[in-house]
Amino acid sequence: MAKVRFRISMSLDGFVAGPSQSLKDPIGIGGLRLHQWVFPLAAWRSMQGLEGGEVNESTIVVAEAVSGVGATVMGRNMFGGGSGPWSAEKPWNGWWGPDPPYHHPVFVLTHHARAPLALEGGTTFHFVTEGPEAALDAARRAAGERDVMVAGGAKVAQQYLARGVVDQMDISLVPILLGAGERLFDTLGDDLRGLALVRTIAAPDVTHLKFVRR
Amino acid sequence: MAKVRFRISMSLDGFVAGPSQSLKDPIGIGGLRLHQWVFPLAAWRSMQGLEGGEVNESTIVVAEAVSGVGATVMGRNMFGGGSGPWSAEKPWNGWWGPDPPYHHPVFVLTHHARAPLALEGGTTFHFVTEGPEAALDAARRAAGERDVMVAGGAKVAQQYLARGVVDQMDISLVPILLGAGERLFDTLGDDLRGLALVRTIAAPDVTHLKFVRR
Repeated sequence: MAKVRFRISMSLDGFVAGPSQSLKDPIGIGGLRLHQWVFPLAAWRSMQGLEGGEVNESTIVVAEAVSGVGATVMGRNMFGGGSGPWSAEKPWNGWWGPDPPYHHPVFVLTHHARAPLALEGGTTFHFVTEGPEAALDAARRAAGERDVMVAGGAKVAQQYLARGVVDQMDISLVPILLGAGERLFDTLGDDLRGLALVRTIAAPDVTHLKFVRR
Repeated sequence: MAKVRFRISMSLDGFVAGPSQSLKDPIGIGGLRLHQWVFPLAAWRSMQGLEGGEVNESTIVVAEAVSGVGATVMGRNMFGGGSGPWSAEKPWNGWWGPDPPYHHPVFVLTHHARAPLALEGGTTFHFVTEGPEAALDAARRAAGERDVMVAGGAKVAQQYLARGVVDQMDISLVPILLGAGERLFDTLGDDLRGLALVRTIAAPDVTHLKFVRR
């Protein structure tokens, strides 16, 4: 059965983005340190059209992240372009260029309506103003028998985690401190909503923790 | 060469104690959930004089925690008995009964002087009022060629981590949320002072992360 999945990289002190997110620092100051483990991997490089790279214990996690996903949900911040109404003169079309790495429908949670944006390679961004449940419903319909991936950021993930609708959560725990920024688990109290640790993968510079809902 | 070691259990959201620590809840409300992984282990039970129990991937971590340790440093809260001057009428002698599980000198950081307290089995509590550096110096001298263990709580650990004197840090990451309480990494900024992840052990209901200073 199709699942709702969520994956993210988190520092040892619980941050999934650094402080002062901006166009220059989309994931905040120091936030890129959360993702250093993925860049050397052949599995990641091939998605960017690059050759070579490493194969290690993280490879399976990168492969899983894109396998069997039929739709993605993300927040306005993750799509980017600043806050407020969309600009007609200088339309923001996401961080990913003409051929984004999704290749399926992506539902962007926003307060500002906008026509769907179809880019190359099968990625169409749909802008949903009716809230997280409407976005998830639309994503589920679009995904069919495949899974829905909640891509982030933290606030969007918290909304779905709080509703108890996340069936699988993959935390890539990075053994660093960020000290400030956006915490993943700031609003959930002491309740993981049934998500239990089922797999731990020790990889270079990162530990992958897989939780599934019982 | 003798090392300064620190080990602690931490929740996925970074807490090492729950909120509202008290005599009734020495590690705060919900804090015992951080330690559920250790109680079924034969390695832990035998230290309490109990027979039976499980052997699993956590066994080595429990064995390491007591191996080669010649002295312990802990905070006043961890020794317990409330704050303020020591009571002469109702002396608090720690949580551990007549034969504490240390079997070596223990240095308790406190603002209130008190004569050393020698209990059974080789455990003597020394009360240090001259601050964390004096306590660590005394512990190093007492430990000789063996290691010094920083036992906690969080504030004491932070002081030694901030000084960069911790050579080895073992975090037992428990896949639960506490939502409130005492965070381990609240005061260290984005700097682990050279501590780098060198070993990850996947065990039932806990992931053991070993850091050493490079």
